[in-house]
This record gives sequence, C-alpha cells and structure tokens, in this order.
Amino acid sequence: MNSDFTPDNFDFAVLDSHRAQRTGYPEAVYCGGKTLEQSQVIIEQMRLQGIPVLATHASPDLAQRLRPNFSDLVYDELSKVLTIGQAPEPQGLVMVVAAGTSDLPYAREALLTSQFFGSRTEIITDVGVAGIHRLFHRLEQIRSANVVIAVAGMEGALASVLAGLVSVPVIALPTSVGYGANFGGLSALLGMLNSCAPGLATVNIDNGFGAGYLANQINRLITTRTPSPHP
Amino acid sequence: MNSDFTPDNFDFAVLDSHRAQRTGYPEAVYCGGKTLEQSQVIIEQMRLQGIPVLATHASPDLAQRLRPNFSDLVYDELSKVLTIGQAPEPQGLVMVVAAGTSDLPYAREALLTSQFFGSRTEIITDVGVAGIHRLFHRLEQIRSANVVIAVAGMEGALASVLAGLVSVPVIALPTSVGYGANFGGLSALLGMLNSCAPGLATVNIDNGFGAGYLANQINRLITTRTPSPHP
Amino acid sequence: MNSDFTPDNFDFAVLDSHRAQRTGYPEAVYCGGKTLEQSQVIIEQMRLQGIPVLATHASPDLAQRLRPNFSDLVYDELSKVLTIGQAPEPQGLVMVVAAGTSDLPYAREALLTSQFFGSRTEIITDVGVAGIHRLFHRLEQIRSANVVIAVAGMEGALASVLAGLVSVPVIALPTSVGYGANFGGLSALLGMLNSCAPGLATVNIDNGFGAGYLANQINRLITTRTPSPHP
Amino acid sequence: MNSDFTPDNFDFAVLDSHRAQRTGYPEAVYCGGKTLEQSQVIIEQMRLQGIPVLATHASPDLAQRLRPNFSDLVYDELSKVLTIGQAPEPQGLVMVVAAGTSDLPYAREALLTSQFFGSRTEIITDVGVAGIHRLFHRLEQIRSANVVIAVAGMEGALASVLAGLVSVPVIALPTSVGYGANFGGLSALLGMLNSCAPGLATVNIDNGFGAGYLANQINRLITTRTPSPHP
Amino acid sequence: MNSDFTPDNFDFAVLDSHRAQRTGYPEAVYCGGKTLEQSQVIIEQMRLQGIPVLATHASPDLAQRLRPNFSDLVYDELSKVLTIGQAPEPQGLVMVVAAGTSDLPYAREALLTSQFFGSRTEIITDVGVAGIHRLFHRLEQIRSANVVIAVAGMEGALASVLAGLVSVPVIALPTSVGYGANFGGLSALLGMLNSCAPGLATVNIDNGFGAGYLANQINRLITTRTPSPHP
Amino acid sequence: MNSDFTPDNFDFAVLDSHRAQRTGYPEAVYCGGKTLEQSQVIIEQMRLQGIPVLATHASPDLAQRLRPNFSDLVYDELSKVLTIGQAPEPQGLVMVVAAGTSDLPYAREALLTSQFFGSRTEIITDVGVAGIHRLFHRLEQIRSANVVIAVAGMEGALASVLAGLVSVPVIALPTSVGYGANFGGLSALLGMLNSCAPGLATVNIDNGFGAGYLANQINRLITTRTPSPHP
Amino acid sequence: MNSDFTPDNFDFAVLDSHRAQRTGYPEAVYCGGKTLEQSQVIIEQMRLQGIPVLATHASPDLAQRLRPNFSDLVYDELSKVLTIGQAPEPQGLVMVVAAGTSDLPYAREALLTSQFFGSRTEIITDVGVAGIHRLFHRLEQIRSANVVIAVAGMEGALASVLAGLVSVPVIALPTSVGYGANFGGLSALLGMLNSCAPGLATVNIDNGFGAGYLANQINRLITTRTPSPHP
Amino acid sequence: MNSDFTPDNFDFAVLDSHRAQRTGYPEAVYCGGKTLEQSQVIIEQMRLQGIPVLATHASPDLAQRLRPNFSDLVYDELSKVLTIGQAPEPQGLVMVVAAGTSDLPYAREALLTSQFFGSRTEIITDVGVAGIHRLFHRLEQIRSANVVIAVAGMEGALASVLAGLVSVPVIALPTSVGYGANFGGLSALLGMLNSCAPGLATVNIDNGFGAGYLANQINRLITTRTPSPHP
Repeated sequence: MNSDFTPDNFDFAVLDSHRAQRTGYPEAVYCGGKTLEQSQVIIEQMRLQGIPVLATHASPDLAQRLRPNFSDLVYDELSKVLTIGQAPEPQGLVMVVAAGTSDLPYAREALLTSQFFGSRTEIITDVGVAGIHRLFHRLEQIRSANVVIAVAGMEGALASVLAGLVSVPVIALPTSVGYGANFGGLSALLGMLNSCAPGLATVNIDNGFGAGYLANQINRLITTRTPSPHP
Repeated sequence: MNSDFTPDNFDFAVLDSHRAQRTGYPEAVYCGGKTLEQSQVIIEQMRLQGIPVLATHASPDLAQRLRPNFSDLVYDELSKVLTIGQAPEPQGLVMVVAAGTSDLPYAREALLTSQFFGSRTEIITDVGVAGIHRLFHRLEQIRSANVVIAVAGMEGALASVLAGLVSVPVIALPTSVGYGANFGGLSALLGMLNSCAPGLATVNIDNGFGAGYLANQINRLITTRTPSPHP
Repeated sequence: MNSDFTPDNFDFAVLDSHRAQRTGYPEAVYCGGKTLEQSQVIIEQMRLQGIPVLATHASPDLAQRLRPNFSDLVYDELSKVLTIGQAPEPQGLVMVVAAGTSDLPYAREALLTSQFFGSRTEIITDVGVAGIHRLFHRLEQIRSANVVIAVAGMEGALASVLAGLVSVPVIALPTSVGYGANFGGLSALLGMLNSCAPGLATVNIDNGFGAGYLANQINRLITTRTPSPHP
Repeated sequence: MNSDFTPDNFDFAVLDSHRAQRTGYPEAVYCGGKTLEQSQVIIEQMRLQGIPVLATHASPDLAQRLRPNFSDLVYDELSKVLTIGQAPEPQGLVMVVAAGTSDLPYAREALLTSQFFGSRTEIITDVGVAGIHRLFHRLEQIRSANVVIAVAGMEGALASVLAGLVSVPVIALPTSVGYGANFGGLSALLGMLNSCAPGLATVNIDNGFGAGYLANQINRLITTRTPSPHP
Repeated sequence: MNSDFTPDNFDFAVLDSHRAQRTGYPEAVYCGGKTLEQSQVIIEQMRLQGIPVLATHASPDLAQRLRPNFSDLVYDELSKVLTIGQAPEPQGLVMVVAAGTSDLPYAREALLTSQFFGSRTEIITDVGVAGIHRLFHRLEQIRSANVVIAVAGMEGALASVLAGLVSVPVIALPTSVGYGANFGGLSALLGMLNSCAPGLATVNIDNGFGAGYLANQINRLITTRTPSPHP
Repeated sequence: MNSDFTPDNFDFAVLDSHRAQRTGYPEAVYCGGKTLEQSQVIIEQMRLQGIPVLATHASPDLAQRLRPNFSDLVYDELSKVLTIGQAPEPQGLVMVVAAGTSDLPYAREALLTSQFFGSRTEIITDVGVAGIHRLFHRLEQIRSANVVIAVAGMEGALASVLAGLVSVPVIALPTSVGYGANFGGLSALLGMLNSCAPGLATVNIDNGFGAGYLANQINRLITTRTPSPHP
Repeated sequence: MNSDFTPDNFDFAVLDSHRAQRTGYPEAVYCGGKTLEQSQVIIEQMRLQGIPVLATHASPDLAQRLRPNFSDLVYDELSKVLTIGQAPEPQGLVMVVAAGTSDLPYAREALLTSQFFGSRTEIITDVGVAGIHRLFHRLEQIRSANVVIAVAGMEGALASVLAGLVSVPVIALPTSVGYGANFGGLSALLGMLNSCAPGLATVNIDNGFGAGYLANQINRLITTRTPSPHP
Repeated sequence: MNSDFTPDNFDFAVLDSHRAQRTGYPEAVYCGGKTLEQSQVIIEQMRLQGIPVLATHASPDLAQRLRPNFSDLVYDELSKVLTIGQAPEPQGLVMVVAAGTSDLPYAREALLTSQFFGSRTEIITDVGVAGIHRLFHRLEQIRSANVVIAVAGMEGALASVLAGLVSVPVIALPTSVGYGANFGGLSALLGMLNSCAPGLATVNIDNGFGAGYLANQINRLITTRTPSPHP
C-alpha cells in the first residue's frame, strides 16, 4: 500500500481477542479483499498473542511469505486454506460428502475448518445423483457421523437426497461449479434452499468455511453439553 | 368486449389450418389472456372445420359455456384442460412421474396432452426425492416407457435422479409449487437446466402442455419412422 | 376436484411410512398447493395408521373440517400450523428469537414444529437490531439454549448479531416481512447467507417448518448420541 | 495440486462403471473446474478399463498432455471436445442448425457428442432469423432428420421458427453469444423456454453436450425400440 | 380521498400546457396509480382548456363517470383507452402486427394512440412465428407502411423476423402474455432487445401507448419535414 | 388471533421506550404484517406511556377502531399515515418534490413523517422531467429548503436533475409507480442509486417514512448542533 | 482453428446477399465471438462481391490484418468500428447526444453506423443531467435533426429529459458505463424503458450499431418516402 | 486513441465550470471508462482554470503521468483517489465507520472526498457486527460526529446497528466485499435499503465518493445555514 495520504496511526484491523471467550472459538482470517501486507500483519499479530490461525482464501504468495517464520504452517493449495498452530483433540465425526471432483476445493475448505476447530472428519467424493448407486454404497459410513455436509454445484440435488436418508442434521454447501444458467452457483443455492427434504440448512455459495464451522459447532455440542440441561 | 371503437371486420384470430400438414398435429388453444368470448369463438370455428380441440388454461366457465353444444367435451378441473373430439389410437408409452400431490395439475396437463395427440400414458405420483425409496419401487414400470416426463417443484431434484436411472429421454417439467425463494418456479427450473445428469431437456415452468406435446412427438417417432432411414 | 376424466384408482399421494425408521421422524404435510380434499384424505390416512400429524400452511377451513373427528387437534391461526396427536416428551431447549411482531407467524411455525418433534422451546420477540439493547437484556436466556433460531425480515441483521454473541448453532429464518426492495424476503435471505458471523445456516424464506425441524434435530442429537461415538 | 495436508488415499473421483449398463451410454468427463492432473488421471483410468472417452471443456493443454499416449485421440479446438476410442456405427440422423458463426463452438460440441454416442449428424450454419430465407432453402434437408438441435444466442428466435416448421422433436440450445442485456445467454434461454411453438425442450446455456446427448437418445430410440412395445 | 390532514390548496397535478408547443403533441393521461377523482379532475381541466384527451389504463368506472359530460368520449374496454376530442386528419400508415389474440389489448392501445395523434393505421393479428406462413401471406400489406409495430409476448420472436423482412423502422412492443419463466414479459423484452436483426427499437412491456406515440412521430416526420433539410 | 395453542403470557411486542433518549426520536409503528389487534394494542400502550404515535401502512379499519378513544387522532387515507399526539414546534424546511400525481401517497408519507418529528414542510407535485420547465419554475422555492426529498417512480430521473441544481442534500425516494419493466419500483431505485449527480442518497422503494425521517434529522441538525462543535 | 475433426467443406458462414434487396441495406459483420480468421474470411468474401463492409466489435488485430489489402479501410479504435468501401451520399441529420466522456465508444459506434448507411451526423458530448444547463445550450442544434440518439450510462436520465424537449423521435442507447448497482448497464436500460417521456425507444446495452442503424432508417424515410403515400 | 476517423475539433468533454456557483462545490472527475489521455486532459484543463481536482477510480499510471507537473498532487493507491489543490478549512466532523479491513478502499474514498470538500474526518475500522462489542467501545467517539458513514460488505448489518444507536444521519455505503450470493454487493445494498432502523440512506455499491460528498454536504449545512432560516 503506497499512499501519499498519511493518516496517523492508521489501524486497518482490530483483533477480536474476546471472541474465544464469547463464542468458544478463535477468530478466522478471510484474506479475500485484503492486500498481502494486511493479511500478513493480522496473522503475525494473532500468533504473537498465541492465537491459532485459520486463514481462508489465502493465496500461495501469502503462504510463501509466512512459511519461513512459522514452522507449523500448513497450506492446502486446492482450497486455499492456511493454518498455523495446533488444532484441538478431534472429537465426534463430521462427514463431508461432495458431488463431484470439481467441488473438492470447497469440500476441503469445509473439512479443514471442521478439523481446525476440533472435529474428527471424513470425506466422500464423486457421489452425485447422476449415478446415485455410488451414494447408496456409502450410506452406512455416512450415517455414522453426527452431522453431514453435502457439497454440490449444478442443481445441488445431492443435499435433498442425503437429507431424506439420514437422521442427523445436513448442512448444504452450494458451489459455483457449473456454467450457463447456474449463474455462479445460484442454481445450487436455490435448489438447496427449496429442498423438499426437511432437516437441511444452507450456507453461502462456495462457503466451505461456514459449513465446516457450523458442522463443528453441532458436532461438539454433543460433548460439551450434558444430555438434559433443562430438567 | 364492449368497445366504442368499431374497427370493421376485426378478426382477432387466424386458424393455422395448415398446421396439421406441416407438423403432423393440429393446433392447440391457449386460453390464458383470452376473453371467454374469444376462446369460445376460436373453439367453435375449429369444430366447424372438423379439427379436434385441445384447450389449456381453460376456466370452468368456458367449459360450462361450451358443454351444451359439444357432447364429447371432456374437462379436467384440476389441470384446466378441455378436449373435444376423438384422440388417435394410443400407441407406445409416455410415463408421467410427479414428485408430489401439489404437482398434479401440471402432471395431468402433460398426461392429457400426450393422450390427445396419440400416446398411451401412465402416471406415478408422490415419489419425490425426500423419500427416494418410493421412486425405486417403481423403476421397472418407469423403464418400460419410451419417454419419461419428470414433474417437480421446489428444488426439482426428481428430474436429475430419474435421468441417471433410465436410458430413454427424460423431459423435465418444473412447477411453481413451493414458496419463498422458489421465486414462482425458478428454483425448479434452474435445478433442471443445470442437472448433472445428461439426457434431460426442460420446458417452461408449469408448461404441462409443452412437456406432453414433446413426449408424444418422441414416443410416436418410433412408430412413424422406419428404424434406419439413412442407410 | 370435479373432472370428466376418470383415471381409475387415481392415487394422488403415497404415504412415506418408512420415514420414521429411516430418519427418526414422521412425515409432515405441506398443505400449500393441495386441495382441501387432498389434505383431508392424507391426514385421515395418517391418523388411521397411528401417525402423529403436523400440517403446515393449513387453512382455517381445513381445521374446521377435521376438528369434529379429532378431539386432540390443535390449530394455530397465526402460523397456520395444525397438529393431531401427542408430541414426544420435550427435551433440551430450542430458543426462537424474532425481530418484530410481523415475524411472529413464521416464528411460531418454527416453535410449534420443534415442539411437535420433541424439543422444549422458548420464544423472545421484538428484539430487532434497531433497538439492540432489547436483545442484550435477554442474552443470558438465549445462551441457555442448545440451538437458536433467528427470525427476521427486512435486512435480517438479527441473525448476524446473534451468531456473534452465542457459542451454539444459530439457524437463520428469513421472512418476507417488509416491502419494496425486500423482493419478497430476498433481502433478508441474502443478508443471512452473507453473514460476516460464522456458525449460521439459512433456510428458505418464511420456512418456519424447516428451521424448527432442523433445530429439533440438533437439539435432540445431544440426548440421542453418546458424547464420543468415535473413540 | 501441491498441498501440505496429507489425507491418506485421497480419491477425488469415482468412476461410474455401471453407467453403461444402467443407461446404455458410458460416462463423459466434464473438465471444467478440474485441474489438469485430475482430468488426466480420470481419462487414463477410463481407458485402462476400455471405456471410450468423451471429454468436454477440455483445454488444449490437456489434449497435448494426453496425445502422446493415445494415438486415436481427436481434439476439436473450437468446441474444446476431446475423444478417445471408437464411436458406435452411426445411425439415423441428428441435424444441428446454428443461427450464426459465433454459435459454432456450441453447435460443434452438440454435433460431436451425438456422433460419439452413435448418431449420424449434419450441420447447417448461419441461418438466423434476420435473414430467414436462408433457413427456408434448407428446410427439406432439415426435415429429413429424426431430431433437430436449434443453436442460437441473442434472442434465440431460430428455435421457435424451426419448431413451427418441422414435425420431429426440436432441442433448443441457447448460447451466450451476444452482449449487454443478453446477460450471458439468459435472453436466448428465456426466449426458448417461452417459445410459442410446441415441441421444443431446452437445455442449459452453451450446453452442447446435453443437447447432443439427448438428440442421440431420441435418434437411437427408433432403432432400439420396436415400433409398438405396448400392444 | 378522505383525509384529516388539510394542506391548503393541495394541487396534485400541473398541466403541461406548453407541451404541444414544445413537442408538437398534447399531454396524455396515465390513469394507473391515480384515484378516480384525480383522473376525472385532470381530464375535465384539460377539456376546459380545449386540449384533446388520450387517457390510458382507464377503468370502465372512469369512462362511466365521464361519459355524461362528454358526448364525443370513446372508450375501448379491451385496451382501457379513453379519448375525448377530435383527432388530426390521418396521414401515412402505421402497421400494427400482433402475434396472438392475447396480445390484442396492447396492440389496440398502440393503434388507438397512433390514430389519436394523427396516423392512419392498420392491424394484423395472430401471425406468430409458430405458424410463420401466416405472416408471409401479409408481407405486401406490411411493407406498404411507413413504420411497423411488432406486438408479441412469450419469446417475442415476431419482432426479429419482421425486422429482417422489411426496410422501414420496426418498433418492438413486448407484452406480458405468457406464464412461468416469462416473468411478466421479461422474456419478450429481452428477446426484442437482443434481436439479431437490426432496425428494431423496444419500448416497455405492455407499453402500447409508447409504441403508438413513437410510431406516429416517425410516420408524421415524412409529411412535416422536407426531404432534404440539410443541403 | 384465534389459536388453540396457549403460550402463557405471549408478548408479541416490546416497546423501545429508551429510543427517544438514545436517538432523540420516539419509535414509529409499522402496521404492515401486523394484525389489527396487534397494531391497536401497541398504539394504546404507547399512548398510556405518553409517547406520541406515528403509524405507517395503517388501514382505514385501524383508524376507525382507534378514533373513538383518541380525539387528536389524524389519519391520511392517501398515504395510510396515522398520528396521535402533538408534534414538536416545526423548524427549518423540508421540501418534498414529487414527479407525478401517482407518487403522492409516498410523497405525503414523507411529508407527514417530517412534520411529526418537528420539521416545517412544503410539497411541490407533478414536476417530472418529461416537462422539465415545470421544475425550473419552482427552483427558487426548492433552493430555500435545508433538505429536499425527490419522489419519483418510472425511471426516477427527477432525483438526478434536482441533485444537479441545488446545494443542499437530496434524498431520493423511488416509488413503485409504473408497470412492465419497472419491476415494482426497481427501475426508479436503480436509477437513483446510479445517479450521475453527487449528493444523493436513496431509501427503499415506497419508503416515504424513511425519507421523511432522515430529512427531518438533517433539517434539525442545523438547529440542534452549534455551527462548529469541533474547533 | 486447429481441429482434428475434419468436417468436409465446413462453411461457417452464409452471406445474406439478398439482404440489400430485401431491406435496402447491406449486411454488417458482428465480430464478437468470431475468431480472427472467421471475421477476415467473411469480410474478404463480401469485398469480392463488391459489398461495402461495416464491422463492429472489430479488434485492432483484425484491422492490422486487413489493412494491407484494403486501401480504403478505416478503423476507429475507440469504438472498434471498421469500414471498407464508400458510404452513400449523406442526407438529412442524425444527432448523437452523449451524457459523458465514458459513453463515447458507444456514441461513436452509433455515429459511424449512421454515416455508413447514408446519414449526415453530428455529435454532442458531456451534457449529462448533473449539469443540465450544458444541454440547454445545445437545444437549438439538437432540434435541427430528424432523429436524436441519446447515449447514457449510469441512470440514463438524459434520454427522458431529451424526449421531453424535442418533437422528433429519440432513440435511447443505454451504456454499461458505471459500476456497482448499474449491473452492467441494467440501470440505464431500465431507466430508458420506463421513461416518463413518450417518444422514446430503446436498444440493447452498448448497442451503438443498433441505434445508428435505426436512426438512419428513420432519417432516410423522409427522403425515400413521398410525404403522403396513402391518400 | 488512435483512429482513422477524423471528426474535426472533437471535444470529448465539457467542463461544468458553473457547477461551483450552482451547487457550491467543484466538479469531480470519474476516471472509470475514460482513457488515460482523456483523464489527463480534463484534469489539466481544470487546473488551468484554477479548479481544485478530485479524481476517483484513478489508476497508478495516471498518477505517475500527472505527478511531474503538479507538486501538490496527492494519490492514495488503496482507494484510487487523486487530488490536486488545496482543500477548504476542515469543519465539523464526518465519522467513517468500516466493518472490515477489506472495506477500506471504499471507506477511504469516502473519507478523502469529505476532506476534499471541507469536512474534518475520523475513521474507525474493523468493527463489524460479528464482534459487536468492538463497536460499542467506540460509541462515544461516533456520537461526537455530525454525520456517520457506515461502510460494510457481506450482509451490511453494521448500518442498521449504527442507525439504531445514534441521533445523527447515517449514510450507508454498501461494498462489493464478499463472494457467492453477495452478487457483487447486492446483499449489502439490499440489506441497507431494507434496514429496520430509520434515519438511513444508501448510496451505490462501492460509491465512496457519493457517500463522502453527501456527508460533507450535511456536515457543512450546520455552518453555512443559520439555525432558523424560516421563522
């Protein structure tokens, strides 16, 4: 950022250090729309305060800049997820089910987010409804999870089909995979919002982070809440 | 139509009497946006010329007006389809598969249209993907048809699932059934257009007539065309 | 349904009697787009099989028709929810938080749905962000729940604010309340999908049923799943 | 794909090898949203199992990578279609009719898809409705086909005009050709969905594959089905 | 208008009496969104000043109220056009070509507007492109006009076809006729705006007045302008 | 509200009695989406606490119910605004400028809202840009105000023109007046948001209340703030 | 175009050589979506037949390729218009009025198109409504034309203002100039379609060619038609 | 601009030198859609006339071209704002409140615009509603301003929350920050337009200039208008 204007003491970000107390989870860094310098400074400040870092939409350049200083940095190029610091002991099970290979970037963002916040995870891919028997072969595995994330682009029908087959909550993650009248993911989004199967809630298009965060919240409720808090 | 303007000899409609020669099928009457009087006159003129009548979006009032003069008038209140005159001998098989009870008006418009133009038809209802086993119980019956019409509102996933299970053409008929972000059938329409399963073509929202017409065309190709016209 | 067409043995609905086994919950009846007769027959058939009934979008006329035969019928005119049969013993806690009085029909649909499937519920109303102190006064109560449903129309900001304040999952229920550029609830829907606060999932506009169903699923996970199923 | 995360045995794709049995046609590969490596591996695995390959949205780079290993690879740069392996004996006739030169990429994707799955094909180009006499000169040729694909961008009127002139099914393929208020093909899509001519079904914008697949299905029905399967 | 607020001397309308001087044509009254009282007062004031009246979107109630006081009032119920006062001597020729019977209300609004401002007019109806030969039979008549108005709903293809066939300007008037994905006339509007045929300009959906006004302007240019004003 | 469900002590509204302290203005009541009973109870409770009442979207039925108990109730049927209680001494000047007669309901809602909260107001109507000289005749009057509200439907050009002519802030109030491609006011809204003239801010379609409220806030700043609070 | 597929004798374009007879004007070449080779071949074929060439959306590369062979090639980089061959003697007057400097590419496409087909033209720029006095200074000049093209992006108000000030037809050319909620020109397009001023017709966003073509048609009507063809 | 066409004396811009008199503020230069040369010439002409320059959407290349000739040029790369010439003495206080770091480019455009036209400014960043306590810590500072600009992308809830907490006008500046269903800023725009909190007006997406201009107008009203101009 090279500017002739010199606002004294221009702080472009304020760490929400109370967040962990308030919500039980540390803040994540969304790198979209931030300059490399801004993302770097924010992440370094978090590490100085000992906060574990989950950064999404992180470019390979950012990973390269940060790696020399952080030996425990882990970067997934496919999903653009970068983490620094130890995740909690994995618990329960979050199942990520992706319709096709092209949905993997978003599926992995969800998976890595759930892992970062403390969930055990598994992933099943390429089980879209055009060949629905592939899904049925994996049903027992899917039903063993506490919560399911259904990842699909195009018409997003996988989410409806899954919600009709399992008894646990299903989080629908629409992706922008497709072209033409998918309008950047709108077709999958509308499909999931209008699902004829109940027990489905939808996050933003390509929002793997949001899906993984919520799945972890639900998954960890089981261990952190006593079964009957309100007798 | 009560008007002070008097355009002499105002003819508001021109029968396309060449149509049967050109396309093999007589013209149908879309009553939407026409006054009762206009629809009545058009239908009566067609009968005078001996043309069999298929009228869609026909109101009960129109049926009541015409019934006294046409003993072979048949009217289906649910789908607003009215027919007068004998249908051709039914041939082949068109299968109409509807996701839910609320989709029936459009499913029946499709079914009655296929019948009118000469197809044998069957209908299967309430087999939406929220309870997908209901669909699998009927697969053998569905596969016996030459062409399938998948009728669904909300997310319209039924069409994708069906197209992945059968080898014959599937016509997707999106309906306006649903509410909120279905935007009058847009969700089902986009879902069907973006289907991950190939072999699917889509008609307009609630356009049972279009689906039934095309299904009949495909179904009758088999009997009217010789297997290998281009050796 | 008065029709001249006589398809023999026309069954317009197929009960999904396996559903309770497959998903743990009985089927609900969406009365939108069904004739009075169709809704009545479906509900009576369910009762004959001993299935408890939750019907949404039920008109007062339907309630009046059914009441003589079902002494335990309960109907809520504001939300158009009708139930027949005993709900399970309420467990846990689902908190419904509504932004304004006009959101109540949808908030109550959510609340009654959660109750029907076995959740204890509480409701807090008129705590929209235009007077955000009203929300803060109730924070302790809200935090005592296992899952929160945030109900709001217009810009739907209540959901974002809530998700930033609690550690449990928040289900966002956008409503069509508002006018002009709310485009039938689109403004609240987009606001909730694009929330800057993680841990939020969204259901269809005015879909109180979907929100209540999912909230109950999450709430009951705690009691039905052992804390650490995957050691 | 260079990632620090190491999910053991990460399988990003599952071949639907039952597909040919279930639907009569092998699976096609949509390369959009897949990395070069993913597309390459999938195609090589298909060839190892002896499955003929049709890949759409294939980049020249992918063609160049694969060509050394597959002597029968054929690549069409205009339509980004890549095939490996022998097509079935061509039968019947699918006629592809394109409005303008700019529609050719999509027209050729449709044509090559129909060929791959076993149809004889012909193509007629630059017969848009702005100079409609060009279309009438080719009517006899068009009417000789079993099924017609109408390819057009801008307002897409070619499809309506064609459907009014022929007796066989017309598949409407809207393209993104145009600018301004065509909104990426929406104008042609809506035009085709709302056609005043019956016997038309529409596929997704620029979806030459879908149009060609369905056209082949219809075309081959004639040879694979006996004329009157349901006496 | 019954109101407790009493803004003294509340004038809700200001006649644009300079308009005829400035643009050559008197002001028209759009009755949509006006109360009966407001429309009545405006029209009576115009007549007091001797201004001829063209009112669009006029309800039958308004016609009934005004008729006793204006013997030369003419009202067309189909198009909701009301006129009072003598039109100029008709000159030239404006040709209104409507695709179907349902488009007549808008076609007649255009026709009556052109007449009111001084054009000779003819109308041709029910020549939509689904039966395009009906259009060709009338080509000679159409080509005799100075300007053509193409009126069509659904996909609106009539305008493109016409513009490719005549040498004079074509004004495209999209109508809301249709259903489903016509989105209240959007399909016809987009079709006309994206026409592949040049020489076409489009007015608002159902805006017969605008089409007729402009057609008259063009038609009358020929008589009011000398052939070569700029030597 | 007739309901079989009996939530004990169901309070559907919470008065924001701190609002006047926090923002300087009492709360207003939006009656849209509320039952008659709910609106009545809320208004009566406000009066019991001595809070002056401004209710928008109030039906004539509500006015009739409340009138017997509140002698100082004033109701404007055109704008559906209802007030009870004394307004502050009017100060400064808010100028409401409306394009056409059909915009008056929204213009008056703005005007009455500004009055209620303490502004002196004037209104100028029927000065749309189709006859722009009518606007210029009133420029001196318009420039005498502290803030201007520009009310227009259709293309909403009045706001741009005004903002280019005055030095004070202009609030743009788009209305739903128009038809066809105005899409319920979207055309005016987009026109105002994209104005080429700076110094314009836009409120929701038909939101006279919001425009009037903000105009009053700006108008009263002048009297409540000392000229140079930050030396 | 480098393709392994070898469709024999693949003709990708058909010259509409009858066009000049049918409509009075030669065909223009839209280079968008065509490869360089396709555009080049089409233009060279036209020149071989002696047809004058107007090519729009022509890249600088295309101009460079063609220039050596055509000494009378003229290329305008700002508007991407390329012409070869003599224009007819200019007649009448088409006035192009552009709101801002950024609208010039489209204004010049309109101007050059009108010139090519035989109109005398003038252009006035930077007279947007934010400084409306600049427009009034040029009114006399504008009124001297037979037809006016109003070019504007953002809210497009210039067209409405112009149509209220002149008696000749005004063609509205919306541009994509702007950002944010202009949605690629939609704001100007809707503004122009919904103009409160009659006598306006709209072409596609950024469609300078369409505007210029129609303006020339109208302008030349005056000289080619006798004043009163229908006595 | 390299063109073969040579329109003599082509002036692509007209300075609105009367603007300062008419509205009290000089004209600003929007560089979007202008060539480098056009922007440069316009700015140089303004400086020749002694007009201070505010240019928005200015590229670094433009800044580099102009810097040698203008020693008082100041350029802010983050917001693409370029100024030349002295701003008026800062008065009052405009408070810019931005939800996140990614909103800074637009927040700074607003801030620099307000400064340029004569307002004292302060900026507060990263106080989005996901961590709402960060906002409450700054409330006293915010309340000290005469007008507040709320800058937010995603759901834009910051504006609603702020408007409920302060008594001065709040200008809502929606940004395109976000992804997926934010549709380029539409989610924040709709959220702000539909705010449940009164006293909010919205500018175009990413229109920092518009927000800053209006804020300055409101802020300076206090000093330029006498408290009670209309006794």
